[in-house]
Amino acid sequence: MITVLRIGHRIGRDKRITTHVALVARAFGANKIIIDTLDKKIEETIRSTCDRFGNDFEIQTGVKPKEIIKNFKGIVAHLTMYGDKLEKSIKKIDKKSDLLIIVGAEKVPPYVYEMTDHNISVGNQPHSEVAALAIFLDRYTDGKWINKKFDGKLQILPSNKGKKVISKERKDVL
Amino acid sequence: MITVLRIGHRIGRDKRITTHVALVARAFGANKIIIDTLDKKIEETIRSTCDRFGNDFEIQTGVKPKEIIKNFKGIVAHLTMYGDKLEKSIKKIDKKSDLLIIVGAEKVPPYVYEMTDHNISVGNQPHSEVAALAIFLDRYTDGKWINKKFDGKLQILPSNKGKKVISKERKDVL
Repeated sequence: MITVLRIGHRIGRDKRITTHVALVARAFGANKIIIDTLDKKIEETIRSTCDRFGNDFEIQTGVKPKEIIKNFKGIVAHLTMYGDKLEKSIKKIDKKSDLLIIVGAEKVPPYVYEMTDHNISVGNQPHSEVAALAIFLDRYTDGKWINKKFDGKLQILPSNKGKKVISKERKDVL
Repeated sequence: MITVLRIGHRIGRDKRITTHVALVARAFGANKIIIDTLDKKIEETIRSTCDRFGNDFEIQTGVKPKEIIKNFKGIVAHLTMYGDKLEKSIKKIDKKSDLLIIVGAEKVPPYVYEMTDHNISVGNQPHSEVAALAIFLDRYTDGKWINKKFDGKLQILPSNKGKKVISKERKDVL
Protein backbone atom coordinates (compact mmCIF):
# COMPACT_ATOMS: atom_id res chain seq x y z
CA MET A 1 0.00 0.00 0.00
CA ILE A 2 1.28 3.47 -0.91
CA THR A 3 0.24 6.49 1.17
CA VAL A 4 1.17 10.10 0.43
CA LEU A 5 1.50 12.52 3.35
CA ARG A 6 1.20 16.18 2.38
CA ILE A 7 2.61 18.50 5.04
CA GLY A 8 2.58 22.28 5.40
CA HIS A 9 -0.74 22.64 3.55
CA ARG A 10 -2.20 26.12 3.93
CA ILE A 11 -5.90 26.50 3.14
CA GLY A 12 -6.43 28.98 0.32
CA ARG A 13 -2.84 29.50 -0.75
CA ASP A 14 -2.04 25.82 -1.35
CA LYS A 15 -5.49 24.70 -2.47
CA ARG A 16 -4.64 24.07 -6.09
CA ILE A 17 -1.14 22.65 -5.62
CA THR A 18 -2.36 20.25 -2.91
CA THR A 19 -5.28 19.22 -5.13
CA HIS A 20 -2.79 18.45 -7.90
CA VAL A 21 -0.65 16.46 -5.45
CA ALA A 22 -3.72 14.42 -4.45
CA LEU A 23 -4.82 13.82 -8.06
CA VAL A 24 -1.30 12.75 -9.03
CA ALA A 25 -1.19 10.39 -6.03
CA ARG A 26 -4.44 8.80 -7.24
CA ALA A 27 -3.55 8.65 -10.95
CA PHE A 28 0.00 7.35 -10.43
CA GLY A 29 -0.85 4.41 -8.20
CA ALA A 30 -0.97 5.57 -4.57
CA ASN A 31 -3.87 4.29 -2.43
CA LYS A 32 -4.35 7.17 -0.03
CA ILE A 33 -3.46 10.78 0.69
CA ILE A 34 -3.23 12.28 4.16
CA ILE A 35 -3.09 16.08 4.47
CA ASP A 36 -1.97 17.68 7.74
CA THR A 37 -4.42 20.62 7.77
CA LEU A 38 -8.16 19.93 7.99
CA ASP A 39 -9.63 20.90 4.60
CA LYS A 40 -13.15 19.65 3.83
CA LYS A 41 -13.13 21.41 0.47
CA ILE A 42 -10.20 19.37 -0.86
CA GLU A 43 -11.75 16.20 0.56
CA GLU A 44 -14.90 16.97 -1.43
CA THR A 45 -12.98 17.70 -4.64
CA ILE A 46 -11.02 14.45 -4.48
CA ARG A 47 -14.03 12.33 -3.47
CA SER A 48 -15.99 13.82 -6.37
CA THR A 49 -13.16 12.86 -8.78
CA CYS A 50 -13.10 9.33 -7.34
CA ASP A 51 -16.87 9.09 -7.62
CA ARG A 52 -16.80 10.00 -11.32
CA PHE A 53 -13.54 8.43 -12.50
CA GLY A 54 -13.10 5.47 -10.13
CA ASN A 55 -12.96 5.28 -6.38
CA ASP A 56 -10.21 3.06 -5.00
CA PHE A 57 -8.46 6.02 -3.37
CA GLU A 58 -8.83 7.49 0.11
CA ILE A 59 -8.34 10.99 1.47
CA GLN A 60 -7.97 12.12 5.08
CA THR A 61 -7.22 15.65 6.31
CA GLY A 62 -6.51 17.16 9.74
CA VAL A 63 -3.81 14.97 11.31
CA LYS A 64 -0.58 15.38 13.28
CA PRO A 65 2.11 14.56 10.72
CA LYS A 66 4.74 13.72 13.35
CA GLU A 67 2.43 11.07 14.82
CA ILE A 68 1.67 9.66 11.36
CA ILE A 69 5.38 9.31 10.57
CA LYS A 70 6.22 7.89 14.02
CA ASN A 71 3.46 5.28 13.94
CA PHE A 72 3.84 4.25 10.30
CA LYS A 73 4.65 0.56 9.86
CA GLY A 74 6.74 0.49 6.73
CA ILE A 75 9.23 2.63 4.83
CA VAL A 76 9.13 6.42 4.93
CA ALA A 77 10.48 8.41 1.98
CA HIS A 78 10.60 12.21 1.84
CA LEU A 79 10.82 13.93 -1.54
CA THR A 80 13.09 16.99 -1.42
CA MET A 81 15.46 18.71 -3.84
CA TYR A 82 18.15 18.32 -1.15
CA GLY A 83 17.77 14.55 -1.04
CA ASP A 84 19.85 11.70 -2.37
CA LYS A 85 19.70 10.70 -6.03
CA LEU A 86 16.41 9.15 -7.16
CA GLU A 87 17.87 6.21 -9.09
CA LYS A 88 20.17 5.28 -6.21
CA SER A 89 17.58 5.71 -3.44
CA ILE A 90 14.74 3.91 -5.13
CA LYS A 91 16.78 0.71 -5.39
CA LYS A 92 17.09 0.67 -1.61
CA ILE A 93 13.33 0.64 -1.01
CA ASP A 94 11.88 -2.80 -0.31
CA LYS A 95 8.72 -2.87 -2.43
CA LYS A 96 7.15 -5.56 -0.25
CA SER A 97 6.81 -3.01 2.58
CA ASP A 98 4.10 -0.38 2.84
CA LEU A 99 5.38 3.01 1.76
CA LEU A 100 4.73 6.49 3.12
CA ILE A 101 5.83 9.27 0.77
CA ILE A 102 6.14 12.72 2.34
CA VAL A 103 5.58 15.74 0.11
CA GLY A 104 6.18 19.13 1.71
CA ALA A 105 5.06 22.64 0.82
CA GLU A 106 7.60 25.48 0.81
CA LYS A 107 9.21 25.05 4.24
CA VAL A 108 9.67 21.56 5.66
CA PRO A 109 10.41 21.25 9.40
CA PRO A 110 13.79 19.63 10.22
CA TYR A 111 12.20 16.65 12.01
CA VAL A 112 10.98 15.37 8.62
CA TYR A 113 14.56 15.01 7.35
CA GLU A 114 15.50 13.23 10.57
CA MET A 115 12.55 10.87 10.95
CA THR A 116 12.43 9.51 7.39
CA ASP A 117 14.29 6.47 6.09
CA HIS A 118 15.11 8.13 2.77
CA ASN A 119 15.37 11.77 1.69
CA ILE A 120 15.09 11.55 -2.07
CA SER A 121 15.61 14.17 -4.77
CA VAL A 122 13.91 14.07 -8.14
CA GLY A 123 16.71 16.15 -9.61
CA ASN A 124 18.52 18.74 -7.47
CA GLN A 125 16.93 21.74 -9.17
CA PRO A 126 13.98 23.67 -7.76
CA HIS A 127 10.78 22.61 -9.52
CA SER A 128 7.56 21.20 -8.11
CA GLU A 129 6.34 18.69 -5.53
CA VAL A 130 3.63 17.72 -8.04
CA ALA A 131 6.23 16.76 -10.64
CA ALA A 132 8.49 15.14 -8.04
CA LEU A 133 5.66 12.89 -6.85
CA ALA A 134 4.70 11.93 -10.41
CA ILE A 135 8.25 11.01 -11.41
CA PHE A 136 8.87 9.17 -8.14
CA LEU A 137 5.70 7.06 -8.52
CA ASP A 138 6.51 6.48 -12.19
CA ARG A 139 9.88 5.00 -11.23
CA TYR A 140 8.53 3.17 -8.18
CA THR A 141 5.78 1.46 -10.22
CA ASP A 142 8.13 0.91 -13.20
CA GLY A 143 5.75 2.98 -15.31
CA LYS A 144 2.87 0.57 -14.63
CA TRP A 145 0.56 3.34 -13.32
CA ILE A 146 -0.31 4.16 -16.93
CA ASN A 147 -2.15 0.84 -17.37
CA LYS A 148 -4.04 0.97 -14.06
CA LYS A 149 -7.79 0.33 -14.43
CA PHE A 150 -10.04 2.71 -12.51
CA ASP A 151 -13.47 1.41 -13.49
CA GLY A 152 -15.20 4.75 -13.00
CA LYS A 153 -18.58 5.96 -14.23
CA LEU A 154 -16.68 8.11 -16.71
CA GLN A 155 -13.94 6.78 -18.89
CA ILE A 156 -11.86 8.79 -21.34
CA LEU A 157 -10.74 7.09 -24.54
CA PRO A 158 -7.39 8.13 -26.04
CA SER A 159 -7.89 10.21 -29.18
CA ASN A 160 -5.70 12.42 -31.37
CA LYS A 161 -8.53 14.89 -32.04
CA GLY A 162 -11.44 15.97 -29.87
CA LYS A 163 -12.77 14.38 -26.66
CA LYS A 164 -14.09 10.83 -26.35
CA VAL A 165 -15.78 10.13 -23.03
CA ILE A 166 -17.80 7.02 -22.18
CA SER A 167 -20.42 7.27 -19.46
CA LYS A 168 -21.51 4.01 -17.79
CA GLU A 169 -24.72 5.62 -16.64
CA ARG A 170 -25.69 7.08 -19.99
CA LYS A 171 -24.27 4.08 -21.90
CA ASP A 172 -23.08 6.15 -24.82
CA VAL A 173 -20.15 8.25 -25.92
CA LEU A 174 -20.49 11.84 -24.68
CA MET B 1 14.88 23.58 -29.05
CA ILE B 2 11.93 22.88 -26.78
CA THR B 3 9.42 25.64 -25.99
CA VAL B 4 6.48 25.32 -23.60
CA LEU B 5 3.38 27.44 -24.27
CA ARG B 6 1.15 27.91 -21.23
CA ILE B 7 -2.35 29.03 -22.18
CA GLY B 8 -5.31 30.17 -20.08
CA HIS B 9 -3.11 31.61 -17.35
CA ARG B 10 -5.09 33.77 -14.92
CA ILE B 11 -3.09 36.16 -12.74
CA GLY B 12 -3.62 35.40 -9.07
CA ARG B 13 -5.53 32.17 -9.34
CA ASP B 14 -2.96 30.32 -11.49
CA LYS B 15 0.17 31.97 -10.12
CA ARG B 16 1.53 28.96 -8.31
CA ILE B 17 0.54 26.28 -10.82
CA THR B 18 1.98 28.30 -13.72
CA THR B 19 5.17 28.90 -11.72
CA HIS B 20 5.46 25.13 -11.20
CA VAL B 21 4.88 24.57 -14.93
CA ALA B 22 7.70 27.02 -15.71
CA LEU B 23 10.09 25.49 -13.16
CA VAL B 24 9.36 22.00 -14.48
CA ALA B 25 9.96 23.19 -18.05
CA ARG B 26 13.37 24.55 -16.96
CA ALA B 27 14.39 21.55 -14.82
CA PHE B 28 13.27 18.90 -17.31
CA GLY B 29 15.11 20.22 -20.34
CA ALA B 30 12.94 22.81 -22.11
CA ASN B 31 14.64 26.00 -23.30
CA LYS B 32 11.84 28.52 -23.02
CA ILE B 33 8.37 29.14 -21.63
CA ILE B 34 5.81 31.44 -23.20
CA ILE B 35 2.74 32.41 -21.12
CA ASP B 36 -0.29 33.96 -22.82
CA THR B 37 -1.18 36.50 -20.12
CA LEU B 38 1.27 39.31 -19.30
CA ASP B 39 2.61 38.55 -15.81
CA LYS B 40 5.73 40.43 -14.72
CA LYS B 41 5.68 38.75 -11.30
CA ILE B 42 6.13 35.26 -12.74
CA GLU B 43 8.81 36.56 -15.09
CA GLU B 44 10.70 37.89 -12.06
CA THR B 45 10.30 34.65 -10.10
CA ILE B 46 11.62 32.51 -12.94
CA ARG B 47 14.47 34.90 -13.82
CA SER B 48 15.50 34.94 -10.16
CA THR B 49 15.59 31.12 -10.13
CA CYS B 50 17.68 31.13 -13.32
CA ASP B 51 20.01 33.74 -11.85
CA ARG B 52 20.67 31.62 -8.76
CA PHE B 53 20.54 28.08 -10.12
CA GLY B 54 21.64 28.52 -13.75
CA ASN B 55 20.28 30.66 -16.52
CA ASP B 56 19.95 28.94 -19.88
CA PHE B 57 16.17 29.30 -19.84
CA GLU B 58 13.97 32.05 -21.23
CA ILE B 59 10.55 33.34 -20.20
CA GLN B 60 8.15 35.53 -22.15
CA THR B 61 4.62 36.55 -21.12
CA GLY B 62 1.81 38.49 -22.85
CA VAL B 63 1.42 36.91 -26.28
CA LYS B 64 -1.37 35.79 -28.62
CA PRO B 65 -1.26 31.99 -28.36
CA LYS B 66 -3.01 31.42 -31.69
CA GLU B 67 -0.32 33.46 -33.46
CA ILE B 68 2.45 31.57 -31.64
CA ILE B 69 1.00 28.20 -32.71
CA LYS B 70 0.33 29.37 -36.28
CA ASN B 71 3.82 30.78 -36.80
CA PHE B 72 5.75 28.01 -35.05
CA LYS B 73 8.27 26.27 -37.31
CA GLY B 74 8.35 22.74 -35.96
CA ILE B 75 6.12 20.20 -34.27
CA VAL B 76 3.28 21.24 -31.97
CA ALA B 77 2.15 18.86 -29.20
CA HIS B 78 -0.73 19.57 -26.82
CA LEU B 79 -0.87 17.73 -23.50
CA THR B 80 -4.44 16.80 -22.56
CA MET B 81 -6.10 13.93 -20.72
CA TYR B 82 -8.28 13.47 -23.82
CA GLY B 83 -5.26 12.95 -26.08
CA ASP B 84 -3.75 9.90 -27.69
CA LYS B 85 -1.53 7.53 -25.71
CA LEU B 86 1.83 8.94 -24.63
CA GLU B 87 3.99 5.98 -25.65
CA LYS B 88 2.39 5.79 -29.08
CA SER B 89 2.39 9.55 -29.77
CA ILE B 90 5.93 10.24 -28.63
CA LYS B 91 7.34 7.81 -31.18
CA LYS B 92 5.77 9.88 -33.97
CA ILE B 93 7.59 13.08 -32.98
CA ASP B 94 10.70 13.80 -35.04
CA LYS B 95 13.26 14.86 -32.41
CA LYS B 96 15.31 16.77 -34.99
CA SER B 97 12.52 19.35 -35.26
CA ASP B 98 11.89 22.15 -32.81
CA LEU B 99 9.06 21.31 -30.46
CA LEU B 100 6.27 23.47 -29.02
CA ILE B 101 4.46 21.83 -26.08
CA ILE B 102 1.11 23.35 -25.18
CA VAL B 103 -0.03 23.11 -21.57
CA GLY B 104 -3.50 24.45 -20.81
CA ALA B 105 -5.21 25.55 -17.62
CA GLU B 106 -8.74 24.31 -16.83
CA LYS B 107 -10.55 25.10 -20.08
CA VAL B 108 -8.71 24.81 -23.38
CA PRO B 109 -10.28 26.47 -26.45
CA PRO B 110 -11.19 24.05 -29.29
CA TYR B 111 -8.74 25.66 -31.75
CA VAL B 112 -5.86 24.20 -29.72
CA TYR B 113 -7.04 20.63 -30.40
CA GLU B 114 -7.41 21.48 -34.09
CA MET B 115 -4.18 23.39 -34.70
CA THR B 116 -1.74 20.98 -33.02
CA ASP B 117 0.03 18.06 -34.69
CA HIS B 118 -0.44 15.79 -31.68
CA ASN B 119 -2.90 15.79 -28.78
CA ILE B 120 -1.18 13.63 -26.19
CA SER B 121 -2.42 12.20 -22.91
CA VAL B 122 -0.17 11.38 -19.99
CA GLY B 123 -2.68 8.84 -18.75
CA ASN B 124 -6.41 9.40 -19.32
CA GLN B 125 -7.19 10.24 -15.70
CA PRO B 126 -7.57 13.79 -14.38
CA HIS B 127 -4.37 14.87 -12.61
CA SER B 128 -2.12 17.84 -13.25
CA GLU B 129 -0.55 19.76 -16.12
CA VAL B 130 2.58 20.04 -13.96
CA ALA B 131 2.89 16.25 -13.72
CA ALA B 132 1.93 15.76 -17.38
CA LEU B 133 4.70 18.11 -18.52
CA ALA B 134 7.28 16.43 -16.28
CA ILE B 135 6.42 12.91 -17.48
CA PHE B 136 6.25 14.03 -21.12
CA LEU B 137 9.68 15.70 -20.95
CA ASP B 138 11.07 12.70 -19.07
CA ARG B 139 10.00 10.40 -21.92
CA TYR B 140 10.98 12.87 -24.65
CA THR B 141 14.52 13.29 -23.24
CA ASP B 142 14.79 9.56 -22.42
CA GLY B 143 15.31 10.55 -18.77
CA LYS B 144 18.41 12.58 -19.62
CA TRP B 145 17.07 15.77 -17.98
CA ILE B 146 18.28 14.40 -14.64
CA ASN B 147 21.94 14.75 -15.68
CA LYS B 148 21.62 18.23 -17.20
CA LYS B 149 24.28 20.69 -15.92
CA PHE B 150 22.96 24.10 -14.94
CA ASP B 151 26.18 25.79 -13.78
CA GLY B 152 24.39 28.18 -11.42
CA LYS B 153 25.77 30.24 -8.54
CA LEU B 154 24.05 27.80 -6.21
CA GLN B 155 24.40 24.06 -6.55
CA ILE B 156 22.68 21.46 -4.40
CA LEU B 157 24.57 18.25 -3.64
CA PRO B 158 22.54 15.06 -3.22
CA SER B 159 22.41 13.98 0.43
CA ASN B 160 20.39 11.50 2.47
CA LYS B 161 20.28 13.81 5.50
CA GLY B 162 20.23 17.60 5.77
CA LYS B 163 20.95 20.18 3.06
CA LYS B 164 24.22 20.54 1.18
CA VAL B 165 24.41 23.68 -0.92
CA ILE B 166 27.53 25.01 -2.67
CA SER B 167 27.73 28.72 -3.41
CA LYS B 168 30.17 29.79 -6.15
CA GLU B 169 30.27 33.30 -4.76
CA ARG B 170 30.98 32.31 -1.18
CA LYS B 171 33.18 29.37 -2.23
CA ASP B 172 32.06 27.15 0.63
CA VAL B 173 29.29 24.76 1.56
CA LEU B 174 26.32 26.63 3.05
